[in-house]
This record gives sequence, C-alpha cells and structure tokens, in this order.
Amino acid sequence: MAGGHAGKEKMKKLSKELIERVHRIKLVLTDCDGVLTDGGVYYSREGEEMKLFSVRDGMGVERLRRLVNIETGLVTGENSEIVRKRVEKLGIREYHPGSIEKLSVLKNIIRNRKLSAEEIAYIGDDSNDLEIMQQSGLSACPSDAFISISETAHLIMENKGGQGAFREFAEIIIYYKNRQYENTKEGTGRGSHYW
Amino acid sequence: MAGGHAGKEKMKKLSKELIERVHRIKLVLTDCDGVLTDGGVYYSREGEEMKLFSVRDGMGVERLRRLVNIETGLVTGENSEIVRKRVEKLGIREYHPGSIEKLSVLKNIIRNRKLSAEEIAYIGDDSNDLEIMQQSGLSACPSDAFISISETAHLIMENKGGQGAFREFAEIIIYYKNRQYENTKEGTGRGSHYW
Amino acid sequence: MAGGHAGKEKMKKLSKELIERVHRIKLVLTDCDGVLTDGGVYYSREGEEMKLFSVRDGMGVERLRRLVNIETGLVTGENSEIVRKRVEKLGIREYHPGSIEKLSVLKNIIRNRKLSAEEIAYIGDDSNDLEIMQQSGLSACPSDAFISISETAHLIMENKGGQGAFREFAEIIIYYKNRQYENTKEGTGRGSHYW
Amino acid sequence: MAGGHAGKEKMKKLSKELIERVHRIKLVLTDCDGVLTDGGVYYSREGEEMKLFSVRDGMGVERLRRLVNIETGLVTGENSEIVRKRVEKLGIREYHPGSIEKLSVLKNIIRNRKLSAEEIAYIGDDSNDLEIMQQSGLSACPSDAFISISETAHLIMENKGGQGAFREFAEIIIYYKNRQYENTKEGTGRGSHYW
Repeated sequence: MAGGHAGKEKMKKLSKELIERVHRIKLVLTDCDGVLTDGGVYYSREGEEMKLFSVRDGMGVERLRRLVNIETGLVTGENSEIVRKRVEKLGIREYHPGSIEKLSVLKNIIRNRKLSAEEIAYIGDDSNDLEIMQQSGLSACPSDAFISISETAHLIMENKGGQGAFREFAEIIIYYKNRQYENTKEGTGRGSHYW
Repeated sequence: MAGGHAGKEKMKKLSKELIERVHRIKLVLTDCDGVLTDGGVYYSREGEEMKLFSVRDGMGVERLRRLVNIETGLVTGENSEIVRKRVEKLGIREYHPGSIEKLSVLKNIIRNRKLSAEEIAYIGDDSNDLEIMQQSGLSACPSDAFISISETAHLIMENKGGQGAFREFAEIIIYYKNRQYENTKEGTGRGSHYW
Repeated sequence: MAGGHAGKEKMKKLSKELIERVHRIKLVLTDCDGVLTDGGVYYSREGEEMKLFSVRDGMGVERLRRLVNIETGLVTGENSEIVRKRVEKLGIREYHPGSIEKLSVLKNIIRNRKLSAEEIAYIGDDSNDLEIMQQSGLSACPSDAFISISETAHLIMENKGGQGAFREFAEIIIYYKNRQYENTKEGTGRGSHYW
Repeated sequence: MAGGHAGKEKMKKLSKELIERVHRIKLVLTDCDGVLTDGGVYYSREGEEMKLFSVRDGMGVERLRRLVNIETGLVTGENSEIVRKRVEKLGIREYHPGSIEKLSVLKNIIRNRKLSAEEIAYIGDDSNDLEIMQQSGLSACPSDAFISISETAHLIMENKGGQGAFREFAEIIIYYKNRQYENTKEGTGRGSHYW
C-alpha cells in the first residue's frame, strides 16, 4: 500500500539496485540550508535571526528512529546557534557544524561509528555537498537543488528544501527498510501497521 | 450563488451522502501544524520562536460560530505556547495540546460534550491524524496532505495547509448547513445574506 | 509602451467604461490582511508578532502620490499596532483600524473629504470587503481573493495579496491617469518619463 | 558540462555579444529589495523588523570572489540596519544605502575604482533600477521583475528575487569567466574543478 511522502504520488518505485542501496543504510546524513530549510535566512537589525524548518521533516527524523532504528546526522558548512536549537529539539546527536570539508567529516563518522560508506545516506542541495554525495551509499537532493547535485544524486525528491524533501527521503527509506524486514522476518511490522 | 472558499472554483458539489454527513456536524476539530500552518517552525538562537497562521482561517472559526453556531477545537501532538496564543485569539475553548493519542482525545470530547462521532468533523494532514479521521463523521485534509491521509479523507481541500485549507472546510460546512436550515426553516438566513 | 505591474504581461487593457472609472478616482482605499499581506500572522509565545508586507506595494503608495497625486487609505477590521507601523512608514493618513462596518467608514470618508463614491477605488479580498467594494467607483481584488469578491470586483489582479496585488492596481491607475492628463494637457509627464 | 544555477536547466547559452559582455565584467552590483529578497518586509509592533535573504545568494558572493576574483556591491534606495548586517556577513565593502539616484552612484563607483561602465554588471527589479541598468555593461533581473525592467535587462533570470536570482547571475558570470580564463590560459581552473 501507499507510502507516506508528501504530495499526490504513491511511493516512488525504485530499481532493484537502488532498493539494495536502501537496504544497506544505517545512518542518514543531511545538509541544513537548502534541505531542512529553503535556504532562507531572516535578518533583523541584530543580524542573522531566524531560519524556517518544517515539523514534517522533524517527524521524519522521529519516524526513522522509531520505525527502522536509523539515526539522522546533520553536516553543515555554517555554524549557527539557530541550527543547534533545531538539532537539540530533534535529539540529533551526530551534529557537525562548520564542516567546510564535508568529505573528511564523512570519513570521521565512518571511522567513529565503524560503518562503511555504503551504509550512509546523504541528502544535499549545493556545490559543497557534491563530494560527500558521491561517496555515500545512497544520495538524494530536493527538487530545487543545483543541477550538478541533481545530476549526481541517486534520488531527486519531489519536494523542495524546507518543504518536505527530507521527510520524503526518510519515508522512502522507511518503506523499503520495512519491506526488507518483512521479507527477512526481522520486521517489527510497526511501520506498515502505522500506515 | 457562490460559496466563500478561497480560489477560483465555485462551492464544491458534494454527494448526497456527504451532504448528510455535513448536516450532522456539531463540532469541528483541527490539527495545527500542516493544517492551520504550512508545517513551518521559525527558529531563533533561543529555539522555536514563531509559527505562521492565516487570518483567513481565523475568520473561518468566527464564521462557523456566528453563522451556523459551530465551535472549533484544536487537537495537536505538540505542546507549544505559540499555539496557545493563537487559540486564545480565536476564542477556541476545546484545546488539546500534547495529544499523542488523538483517538482517545476524540473519545473524551465525545463523552464530555455528549456528542456522537458522527457529529464531529476533523481536518488533518499527517500520519498521526489517520485514526481520528477514520472515526470522525466528516474528515478533510489540505491539498498537500500525506497520501495515506488524502486517501482517507472524505474531502480534499483545494488549498494547502496554512493557506486557507481550514477556511475552505469551514465554508463548505457553513454553506451546506445554511441550505439545511433554509430547507427545514430553522435557518437564520444570516449565512446566505452574508454572501 | 509597457506598464509597470509585476509579471510578464503588458499593461492590462481596460474597457472604455473602466477607463472612465479610473479617470474619476481621487483616493485609493485598501484592505490590509490578504491584500497588503498574504493573510499570514506570525505568532510567538507572546502572541501576534509580525506581518509580512511588500516594498513593492509601498512603492505603489509613493508612486500614486508622486506621479498622479492620489493618496492611499487603509480600512481594516483588525486593530493591530503592527499595521500602524506600516501605515506610518508609508505616510498614510487615512487609516481606519477596527472597521467592522467598512461601508459606514466609506461614507464617513466621502463626507469628510467631500468626495463622491465614484471618486474612490477600493481593493479587498474577503467577505467583509464585499459591500464597500459594491459602493466604490472602482474595485479590485488580488488573484487569490474569495470567489464572492472576485465576482464583484471590476478588476482581478494577476498578483496575489502580499505579492504585488496593490502595486499592480496602483500602476493601472497611474498608467490610465497619465494618459488622461496627456490627452487633456493637464499631464505633468512625470509618469511616462519615469517609465 | 553542467552549470551551477538553481533549477532544472543547464547553463544558459549566451550569444557571442553577451559572452563578450561577461568577459569584461570586473564588479557586480545588485539592488537589495526584490533581488536579494522577494521584496518582503516583516513588521512587528516596533516597525520594520526583518528581511529574508538566501544563503544561496550569499554563496554566490563568495564564489564570485573566490573563483573569478570579482567583488559584489550593493546599491539600494533604502537605508536599513537589517541590510547592513547582511552586507557585513557577506563581507561586501561596496555598500551604497539611501541611493535615490542610482545612476550617480554608478558614476562615483566608476570614478573611485577606475573602472569603465562596461566593466560593471547590475541586477535589479524595479523602476528605480532602470537607468543604472541601461548604463551598465551587463544587466540582469529576477524572473518576477517589473516589465519595464525585464524589457531592459540583457539577461532575465529563471529564479525570482530572494529565491536564487542573484546566485544564478553569479554562476553565469563564473562559468563564462572561467571558460575565458581557460581559453587564454589565465585560468586557475578552480571553477571548473569545483563543478
């Protein structure tokens, strides 16, 4: 039955190869600006003041954790107290602000968590996400990503950054992970019951 | 004559069965994030700071009260002081924050207000709204709801969450309620005079 | 030559009757929420906090004043300190907050300014604008107005509320007023020189 | 190979004449409201409070500087502390607030920097940008600029103001500048390596 991404379409059909990529994922990493937000920064007289996030994406982080036991990490070139607050609210522990070289952050995460690159999914939208996406087991981008990024990503979301792109990616992973668990009888059944 | 929903279309034509569902409604319940808002949360350095509502929806609450004597309630999984302020502004007394199990909230409301489930309308957009929608007499969702929700709802609005979806639902109820009153000579005539 | 409204279209062609209606206009009145804004209200923990206006509309107020000597007034059902600040910034002197009965406000303005109803233009979007629009010499609405309003308005803008609808209305008035002045040799020529 | 502007399209193909115009550019000037923002101003009870910028445009300023050694300047009719904060964040030194007569600002910049008008690019959206655009070596506008402006601009962006129009303009300049450098063996190659 139907998946849970925003919009009118049914769950995206993936090729066998992409489904296998999803099956291997153990950690989801995401960029911040342009993915969890639409890239906007609200300025007041005191400077950078606010960013706009989506509760739908937040629910994606929760559902990844609860339904398929996958944590989410945030890798961003910026170093913003605003983002830290969002990270705290969502209980994200893998938080890497000021990541100018995102590829080396990926390598550190892999080493620390004893993961392989194939076990990591990444969603990004801009030029500084290119290398880390190329090295990740599964990569995605919002529908309004830069063209070099959308040409690189395994999956292009139907939603824009800040408008459900992350949630859509999360639901794809949840859906195919759950089918994997059901087939191997490892499944909790929670995910499909939920929908 | 014309209805009052936003957008270019005339008042939505409902099937006889749906009109009867509208006729039974005595209370309208709504989710908050993704229905009264577009799901956005504005973060500052101090954390969650603002949410964006619509005066059009607020006028929907007022018009339901004034024209067809129907109160609106708000049932949300979040517990936000921001939402409480909006609730106060609109004079909403049936406010249920922190509602993880929305279905049991529905049951409590039914018991306390001596209503039946058929007398309650609900509008929601995300997975945690699914069960309460299935048990409500009339259910609706914004045009950008998740697919499992739009497959469940009796009515899919033409407007998105935060952009008039609630108002559209309110105007449908007002319009068919008024026609009901006119036919049964119970009507005040205020609604149709208004338009 | 080209008009000055936002978007890809050339200056809207008006019927002879509508052009005559524009020629008579001496004061432009506007609703606030849904016309100068998109109807959004930003709430914080302290309550209603912000509204979003457009500098393009602000430039419309200035250009009406400077190019064709027409003042703008604001007639709104709300009573918001936020709107007052915007009114001050734009130098609007005809400000009527808390106008539940907009039609009687129109009558007062007409009496105080020694104008006729035909000399007043009004732009609104929602049901409480209906009567004042019906009594104004020229009426307009944003593209996303309620249907009862767009059926009533002389002119439907191509732009939405808060996204240039007021400016578009202003530019239509400026354009046809300038052509009127040129034909009658009253024109200052400033408007056409400007473009 | 791919360009770097937002959206689905490949790098815009320019005529030989326009490519030559790009080749001469040494400084990029931009309007603020309607170009770096969508024209919105957020008001609180205290007055003008916030404007919404895009990190994508900010990355455009950085990339112009880093990849093709071109600085960005900001020429705006407004005088807002908010904009000053954004200017500081981006390290913009050529900042001209309160520029009622933008053409004379252009002349001052040309004199002070010992540049010719042909070495200056300008992106604007509204009527007060018209003259400076006509005098600049290369002019552009967001997709939602006023018609008199889009009829004047050498290039019309695919993105709206505040939603990547500036970045798109920056990437066009970077792309053709880099090809210029490669052909003349002046190139650092950084730009093309980056993509």
